[in-house]
Amino acid sequence: MNAIIITIGDEILSGATVDTNAAYIAKDLLAIGVDVTKRCSVGDNTEDIEREINAGLAAFDLVITTGGLGPTEDDITKGVICRVFETQLIEYGEVLAALKVRYQQLGISMSEMARGMAKQPEGATLLANPLGTAPGILFDREGTVFCAMAGVPSEMRALMDQALIPYLEKRGSHRVILFRNISTFGIPESKLATMLKESGYTPDGVRMAFLPSYAGVTLRLRGDGLDRSEVEKTLEKNFEEICEVVKKHIFSTEEESLLDKVTTLLKEKKVTLSTAESCTGGLIAKMLTDIAGSSDYFVQGAVTYSNEAKMARLGVKSETLQKYGAVSEQTCREMAEGMRRTSETDFALASTGIAGPGGGTAEKPVGLVYLAVADHNGATVKRCSFSGDRYVIRTRSAYTVLNLLRLKLLEM
Amino acid sequence: MNAIIITIGDEILSGATVDTNAAYIAKDLLAIGVDVTKRCSVGDNTEDIEREINAGLAAFDLVITTGGLGPTEDDITKGVICRVFETQLIEYGEVLAALKVRYQQLGISMSEMARGMAKQPEGATLLANPLGTAPGILFDREGTVFCAMAGVPSEMRALMDQALIPYLEKRGSHRVILFRNISTFGIPESKLATMLKESGYTPDGVRMAFLPSYAGVTLRLRGDGLDRSEVEKTLEKNFEEICEVVKKHIFSTEEESLLDKVTTLLKEKKVTLSTAESCTGGLIAKMLTDIAGSSDYFVQGAVTYSNEAKMARLGVKSETLQKYGAVSEQTCREMAEGMRRTSETDFALASTGIAGPGGGTAEKPVGLVYLAVADHNGATVKRCSFSGDRYVIRTRSAYTVLNLLRLKLLEM
Repeated sequence: MNAIIITIGDEILSGATVDTNAAYIAKDLLAIGVDVTKRCSVGDNTEDIEREINAGLAAFDLVITTGGLGPTEDDITKGVICRVFETQLIEYGEVLAALKVRYQQLGISMSEMARGMAKQPEGATLLANPLGTAPGILFDREGTVFCAMAGVPSEMRALMDQALIPYLEKRGSHRVILFRNISTFGIPESKLATMLKESGYTPDGVRMAFLPSYAGVTLRLRGDGLDRSEVEKTLEKNFEEICEVVKKHIFSTEEESLLDKVTTLLKEKKVTLSTAESCTGGLIAKMLTDIAGSSDYFVQGAVTYSNEAKMARLGVKSETLQKYGAVSEQTCREMAEGMRRTSETDFALASTGIAGPGGGTAEKPVGLVYLAVADHNGATVKRCSFSGDRYVIRTRSAYTVLNLLRLKLLEM
Repeated sequence: MNAIIITIGDEILSGATVDTNAAYIAKDLLAIGVDVTKRCSVGDNTEDIEREINAGLAAFDLVITTGGLGPTEDDITKGVICRVFETQLIEYGEVLAALKVRYQQLGISMSEMARGMAKQPEGATLLANPLGTAPGILFDREGTVFCAMAGVPSEMRALMDQALIPYLEKRGSHRVILFRNISTFGIPESKLATMLKESGYTPDGVRMAFLPSYAGVTLRLRGDGLDRSEVEKTLEKNFEEICEVVKKHIFSTEEESLLDKVTTLLKEKKVTLSTAESCTGGLIAKMLTDIAGSSDYFVQGAVTYSNEAKMARLGVKSETLQKYGAVSEQTCREMAEGMRRTSETDFALASTGIAGPGGGTAEKPVGLVYLAVADHNGATVKRCSFSGDRYVIRTRSAYTVLNLLRLKLLEM
């Protein structure tokens, strides 16, 4: 089964909104063996939407659209769907009833415009939207499935996971598409590729992609076929050859991020953690607490931007700041050790550096960052020179210190 | 001039990577009057890429691709470009020289694979890549411009801003496309639409889009034409009518986010700020310090996840925590006031709540969040019930407390 995703909205074409929906949908579909082979975006324009939907229905087994189902006048997808499937909007009693309950719970009155959400194309299968008012609109005709979903990411995700995926799974008959991930940190993409080449490895019956990000480079193997155990065997063979070559750079061979890996280790080892951040300004604490259940290991963080805060909160010595400066190995060490001591945690992380764009000097240029992990033996400090803008420097700093922590946790 | 953006990469189709490039490119192009009317993504597959590029060249004035220009074997765009423009790869002396300098600076030796980056299509105009090794590849033939850029976002952005946009501007003859933004906070999209409808306003000669996000709803007006002053006049008329109706919800009519607005106010009023976060776990500090120059106003932050940290760091009273709980108006107030006192800042923000998915009770469900702003008069606390997942609850909390701060700053 092959699929096209059509995302609808002027705001996507104009760049005012980044389209995160298509990536989410593609991932979900791949997991059940449906291959997205094309993706496109069109504006809020009846002709463009109609043309893309019709072209999709002619060439693909599954056509998914997101966006344009809301109550306002720039939301025109429902009208186009009626034209494509030669039907009309009718008011659905059960949708209206659900709307009424929802507005009652919110304690606000339902406007005429909001009531319009009960009007949906006649003959469609409506998929209940657990997080919003626009149901999914599904037509399954002549072997082709069409589904329109709301553009709000949280609503689209709920519709995908709770309605469309179960529907497609029940419908059955997909190819087997499987992946294996090999995630590395601290080595550039071209170096990984060279290592593999020099080892004599070439992909055999699989496709290999290098996925670089600030959180490392993931080698992604994709196997494809009709027989699951065959696909698994081929994948495994390639996987093992690659692992043999790059093993010392691997942090995970599961579908997990560096952050996932670190938080799993923190839980396994039953240790506690605190953070003392200067240049990363709360980013490390934010990332750690993005994960549900982080209160098991994360105790507290300090964002000490000023020298005064570094001294008062973390006990960094005035002489250290004067002699070496705020961006120095010594200050970073005292930050981490001070945080660990005052928060009484097993580990503490610290960052201090120049994230830019201003503040750099010849001696301490933008991108110079010190990162530390403190444990009962004191702190290990790493000096880094990152290139890139403020966002990149902060993000790289956060991942690099998380990787330092990972290595420490593995030593335990 | 109309444009199509083609993003290339299996990782984009499979959803492993979110395509942020297309949005960036579209925004940049609109600013010089080039309209992106279609966008699509294809995998690392020679036939698919060639078909989309050829279809693009036939129907659009400008065809932009990103991705597939790297050194590894899944990077096949250069080969396709050679086929499309009937040319071949040759080694460019000046590109090789630049590569050598780059590797020397990095202090690593240049592999054969890396050297391959000096091979580029003969006859192309090469655009220097200030941040990476893959130059932009431009062909300008028979009135149609083709440009291929690297897929790494920072490199693509530098190529756009420093090379392609200047090239297109010099080439000239674009339509005038202008926007006006009206950004609101704290009012849902459908309510805004109803208010406008009931006021009798309808868009006149402009297109209006509602752009909802957790940072508010932006009304975006787009005017389009050949004469700049005509377009400006039409936009202004619509803009003023809308502002009149929704004015009390507006936080900005510039192209600025709520965060931008708050940081601008902090600088204007010359005040200092600190943060005490529980459920947002560093997110507020992270957002504030995302902005370059934040050390002018941001002094320090505390992420006090545990009750002990709330007491030790912020001076929250043990009785308060026992009597009302960590998620309560009283605790939130003491957090904000304690932070402001100990950090000696003009303002302090605080958050405490249940971000979920676990930890909710009937009395204090997931999504219950208290947010506070403290100033010399004490703290103002707001009780919120957010729906959504952990990410949504934390994000809404952060923006809501920033909006509270904005309102306080405007009172000064």
